Amino acid sequence: MKAWIISIGNELLIGKTVNTNATWLAKKLTELGIKVERIITIPDDIAVVSEIFREAIKSANIIISTGGLGPTFDDITNIALAKALNKELIINKEAYQEIKEKYSKAGLPLTEERIKMSKMPKGAKSLHNPIGTAPGILIKEKEKIIAALPGVPNEMKAIFNKHIKPIIKKKETQTFLSKSLIITGLPESTLAPIINKAMNKTKDIYIKSHPKGEELKKPIIEIHITALGKENIQNEIKKAIKIITKEVKNAGGNIHTK
Amino acid sequence: MKAWIISIGNELLIGKTVNTNATWLAKKLTELGIKVERIITIPDDIAVVSEIFREAIKSANIIISTGGLGPTFDDITNIALAKALNKELIINKEAYQEIKEKYSKAGLPLTEERIKMSKMPKGAKSLHNPIGTAPGILIKEKEKIIAALPGVPNEMKAIFNKHIKPIIKKKETQTFLSKSLIITGLPESTLAPIINKAMNKTKDIYIKSHPKGEELKKPIIEIHITALGKENIQNEIKKAIKIITKEVKNAGGNIHTK
Repeated sequence: MKAWIISIGNELLIGKTVNTNATWLAKKLTELGIKVERIITIPDDIAVVSEIFREAIKSANIIISTGGLGPTFDDITNIALAKALNKELIINKEAYQEIKEKYSKAGLPLTEERIKMSKMPKGAKSLHNPIGTAPGILIKEKEKIIAALPGVPNEMKAIFNKHIKPIIKKKETQTFLSKSLIITGLPESTLAPIINKAMNKTKDIYIKSHPKGEELKKPIIEIHITALGKENIQNEIKKAIKIITKEVKNAGGNIHTK
Repeated sequence: MKAWIISIGNELLIGKTVNTNATWLAKKLTELGIKVERIITIPDDIAVVSEIFREAIKSANIIISTGGLGPTFDDITNIALAKALNKELIINKEAYQEIKEKYSKAGLPLTEERIKMSKMPKGAKSLHNPIGTAPGILIKEKEKIIAALPGVPNEMKAIFNKHIKPIIKKKETQTFLSKSLIITGLPESTLAPIINKAMNKTKDIYIKSHPKGEELKKPIIEIHITALGKENIQNEIKKAIKIITKEVKNAGGNIHTK
């Protein structure tokens, strides 16, 4: 299955906030055997958000957005999602109940801004938020999973782990594995043909080199071997390590496991 | 002027690497008065990268990519960029000279993988890399600035500061300012109408609330006021702060400058 992550929020586009939410989600989805094909960061703008939801729904099976579910004027994810799906935006009864109870317990009235957080596209499932007030939104349509999660990291993580992870686990049959090696004494440009060889002689393996030192003076390269497949990937990783180890030593480099 | 940032690299899509490059660039561009409209993270795939370059060139004046300029098989940004621009990919003489000298000094031969880093779309300017080996690529076409920078953060930053920043500074006439306030004792949903009021009564101002505490038990909200405009934005920020301060106190909250 393929996923798109949509990060909504002007704070990301002005460089105020580092997008750790997208990295966390990408890692979790990858570990579940999902191929994350795109991460898109866009402003709090109804037209843009709904356009990107539409594009994502065309290309991916799993679409997860973060941000824009709160009480302020620029929290517009629910409106944009309804628009993208051509669905009515209605008060979700379950969400309304959750919000009503939370504010009532705190002795606060149900204002327009608070009710807004219970509005979801018709047919959506409200995902209980165990930490904050805005529930997540889940839509399952035509074998696709579309989830809108809050932008506050611990709220987003709690809802993903509780509600989204189990659905994906049931559907996905691929597995992901990875292994890092550290190579010293060889520049990245010398390793390049070695990586090619290891990839050509293995299946379901992708190898990326990450320069950590200085190409010309003191090269330190992390080789990150990843495997995504249905079977035998553990063996393919071992095969790739064997090829790289042999070739690196022949070329006069040193190899360390990370 | 409007910018798109294109982040190229599978390591970002598997959640191995946090995309701090995009945040750094977004902050720098914003400070230069540029509106960053999109950050897109995509895999090391020629078809996808060239498609996104094309889309970006249609929508933005400034397009900056990071990643994919190195010597390995999956460093394909130069090829994808040439494809997007319908230009021939040729050996850039200046880039070739730079690479040749660097490897020659290190006593290493000019292999195919090393020469590859000097290939650029016809008409591109090579941007000297003072730290690593792969030069950046600059294309100025139809009033647009397209720059492909390396993915290694200190190399990317050095090339941006030296070559891209001065070009933008000469062209952009808008200024950006920002100010943070911390508000305690009021939940975000109570602040929402106050923010609306401050935004409606000011010009060129955008105000975003960032919940840092607990909405219902112990709310701590950061109010981030940003202004992007040609004149008077300092005064508009002051005006916004005055409105917020008054309204927050009336509602029983406390206000602190950050």
